[in-house]
Amino acid sequence: MSIHQPPAANAVHAAGSVLRARRLGIDTYQHLVVYLRRDSPVCRAEGFEAQSRIELICGALTVTATLNVADSELLELDEAGLSDASWRALGVRDGTPVQLRHAAPLQSFAAVRAKLQGRPFDDAALLAVAQDIVAGRYSDIHLATLITACSGSHLDLAETIALTRAMVAVGQRMQWPAEVVVDKHCVGGLPGNRTTLLVVPIVAACGLIMPKTSSRAITSPAGTADTMEVLAPVSLEVEQMRQVVRREGGCIAWGGGVALSPADDILIRVERALELDSDGLLVASVLSKKVAAGATHVLIDIPWGRTAKVRSEQAARQLANRLEACGQALGLHVRCVLSDGSQPVGSGIGPAQEALDVLAVLRGQDDAPQDLRQRALTLAGLLLELGGKAAQGQGEALALQTLESGAAWRKFQGICAAQGGMRELPQACCSQVLTARHGGRVVAIDNRKLSTLAKLAGAPRAAAAGLRFHAPLGTVLTPGQPLLTLYAETPGELRYALDYAETQSALVTVEDA
Amino acid sequence: MSIHQPPAANAVHAAGSVLRARRLGIDTYQHLVVYLRRDSPVCRAEGFEAQSRIELICGALTVTATLNVADSELLELDEAGLSDASWRALGVRDGTPVQLRHAAPLQSFAAVRAKLQGRPFDDAALLAVAQDIVAGRYSDIHLATLITACSGSHLDLAETIALTRAMVAVGQRMQWPAEVVVDKHCVGGLPGNRTTLLVVPIVAACGLIMPKTSSRAITSPAGTADTMEVLAPVSLEVEQMRQVVRREGGCIAWGGGVALSPADDILIRVERALELDSDGLLVASVLSKKVAAGATHVLIDIPWGRTAKVRSEQAARQLANRLEACGQALGLHVRCVLSDGSQPVGSGIGPAQEALDVLAVLRGQDDAPQDLRQRALTLAGLLLELGGKAAQGQGEALALQTLESGAAWRKFQGICAAQGGMRELPQACCSQVLTARHGGRVVAIDNRKLSTLAKLAGAPRAAAAGLRFHAPLGTVLTPGQPLLTLYAETPGELRYALDYAETQSALVTVEDA
Repeated sequence: MSIHQPPAANAVHAAGSVLRARRLGIDTYQHLVVYLRRDSPVCRAEGFEAQSRIELICGALTVTATLNVADSELLELDEAGLSDASWRALGVRDGTPVQLRHAAPLQSFAAVRAKLQGRPFDDAALLAVAQDIVAGRYSDIHLATLITACSGSHLDLAETIALTRAMVAVGQRMQWPAEVVVDKHCVGGLPGNRTTLLVVPIVAACGLIMPKTSSRAITSPAGTADTMEVLAPVSLEVEQMRQVVRREGGCIAWGGGVALSPADDILIRVERALELDSDGLLVASVLSKKVAAGATHVLIDIPWGRTAKVRSEQAARQLANRLEACGQALGLHVRCVLSDGSQPVGSGIGPAQEALDVLAVLRGQDDAPQDLRQRALTLAGLLLELGGKAAQGQGEALALQTLESGAAWRKFQGICAAQGGMRELPQACCSQVLTARHGGRVVAIDNRKLSTLAKLAGAPRAAAAGLRFHAPLGTVLTPGQPLLTLYAETPGELRYALDYAETQSALVTVEDA
Repeated sequence: MSIHQPPAANAVHAAGSVLRARRLGIDTYQHLVVYLRRDSPVCRAEGFEAQSRIELICGALTVTATLNVADSELLELDEAGLSDASWRALGVRDGTPVQLRHAAPLQSFAAVRAKLQGRPFDDAALLAVAQDIVAGRYSDIHLATLITACSGSHLDLAETIALTRAMVAVGQRMQWPAEVVVDKHCVGGLPGNRTTLLVVPIVAACGLIMPKTSSRAITSPAGTADTMEVLAPVSLEVEQMRQVVRREGGCIAWGGGVALSPADDILIRVERALELDSDGLLVASVLSKKVAAGATHVLIDIPWGRTAKVRSEQAARQLANRLEACGQALGLHVRCVLSDGSQPVGSGIGPAQEALDVLAVLRGQDDAPQDLRQRALTLAGLLLELGGKAAQGQGEALALQTLESGAAWRKFQGICAAQGGMRELPQACCSQVLTARHGGRVVAIDNRKLSTLAKLAGAPRAAAAGLRFHAPLGTVLTPGQPLLTLYAETPGELRYALDYAETQSALVTVEDA
């Protein structure tokens, strides 16, 4: 059976409806919004209504935006008002002609619906999903549904491999003139665990190539990129990143700036708002970025603990297996390390506070947090072994020597300079000390609540916001002794974090000393 | 362990930041958006950024809105621009003082995250979720995640009962001065199956009380409320609905207008966009509205078929069991009927086209669709028996007599008049006949594709849009014979539907006759 199709229809479709672009000066973050007058002939002829998904076409570029309808005089009848994100995505100027039409049905979403009914994703389906995400065809509710369908352990190994490949396929892929290119990653969930900023200069100082790209925070108060950004620019373009690595052997750049896994960058925004974890999305996110960055040998740190992102040793082992198996399928040497996730690493939480800890270790200050220093040495040592710069069991000694000699600190300064220049740390305008009401020995710390507290204070967006934690496990507190210091960039945020602290009774647990 | 909290913090929080309301004239559909100048002191003091979730407080009302940041002269520094939905929700006027503060963390969403990790919802969690939804605290991505977590068969019976109770608890509940109050529902998925508009006048003419509330379309080209709306007003307030039922014994109103299950109304908007089905959400949606509407006896029609919403007899039986068990827990007499879901009912698909079929049956026209007529008589008969107006096995004869005598048609006209007056059917400006290319006997019809076609043409928003289907199962087609006629209210939508039809080769399947 088939349908008679009048030949005229496609001709009309190809022409579409053309309006003049106008920047409205409305910042909707990453949301592409187009504003049209309700009484515009285009709205009426096309049957557009508020929240319609509309394709905006300008030259070779097509993006999908959500329609907001203006009843007022914000716009002329023949204008298409653009939010800042739409404006950037189309790269237009005031008056540029933009063609508008209904977005095509989202075919790839059928696979998401099928997945929810128990049918696994296949390779082609996930590639189509990734392509549609990167083309901006997934609205927020589609992204949220996809993330939910992939949450927890709902993706199996084959799906995880397919998703990783799909994410690599829809982004850029870097190549390096070296046989061994190392990388590291921490699955996160442990506030303050900023070892990357130490590991990169140590191994680069020893001659390994480490073009490190990091994400910004997903559900934490600071990602590696957020912390590095208070010390030096991280939004490098591919060519800049190449130059930094050529000169210094390593870099610490924001992955989103080089579009190594752009589908992941889009998913992360919604994952962050939902605070949903997913083994499959995590593995695909991490490994797609490593493959795209051109890494050959990857060390992955998996801290586990009752209130860490990974809550048990068993879960950590499962994740390690998944990472190693998926890495193998993609031609990567992946080694995972399970580590202690029972408390924050270092004292600072939030971009600037964590950067302070990193600088103290690099400079060999007496007050440098020893836990952060030791973790970095262990990881750098393993990476030196994995990358062939040290024999089995000899890596950590080489790392220690590189740190103590000042070579790592000089390398870090060199990397910052190459990335655009080292920066002064930002200062928080507002701070507040929270004190212990009862005395006793600290026997447990709630990482998640500390993270929430730092986020409510404004981290990671407000770089100076966060906290310094003064009571690691084993500390014997007396009543009135400082427990932590909160930092914020606005009084409103400080107040907001304090309100939260007031309602939480178990940031730390004490026992009689 | 506890935290020292300086007493000043709460005092500051209570004061908040006050701005003047201003209607910006931007229609974002149901999305509550607030627009602030980036350089406004409030934005800076509170650390608000684009997409922040912000509580707007005006008198006793608090709503949660999403922030869009204006860089331009759209607003004054001390103004809070409001989208139409925010404006309506707050009920303010230009210049009314509105207080702004960060939205509190969404505590109830923790239960959704836990559910995704396999922990079932408990009663308290679902009540908190429903309360937060009605208060507007769930953003679209939270709603999408909740719907996804509840999709398919992910809610068990206990959760479904708890969700139904929660939905009832957060809305209004009607009471009627009668011991027996009947209701009916069709789980849908069968285009054109508009029996409610026939059943209500038949049973009301026989003396039963039937205060029918219906939803608008969720994933279909027309819901009962959409079809009724082309014939009479359906957005009745509670008091209007009471008056109509007092006068006529029955009504056909839009449920959203009387806020009988407002949480469901909010979920439905996102379910519609995602086209996701869920047994648990379906049962809670249907039964919460019946309980809230004050029904005591409910008949539920479950059409099943390969391309209906319910795809197999087994799935239909499961759903029937769930509906009956959940009804029992809520004190409702629920009876389910499984029916044929292999093809559309009647010829029309879309509000106005379906209304034409209903009128033909009520008026006893020769060209009235017999399948729609017969289904309505069966259901009305069962409802007359369930409600005690006819002995077992006698209901259908009473229904037939009521239809043939013209009593049902007079009752329908009375109901329309009581609801605000019968309307003229809207006319579509554009139509296009699609013809069969090959001849043969029609052996299968894809309900879903026909629905999609009608939706692409503009249904249900454009009331005159949709299609008339000319080739029911068993029809022997010759090449060039009309298969269906498409109707649209704009050339753009007609073109859009035609584009879809062109790419679909199996709207109907034919075999050699």
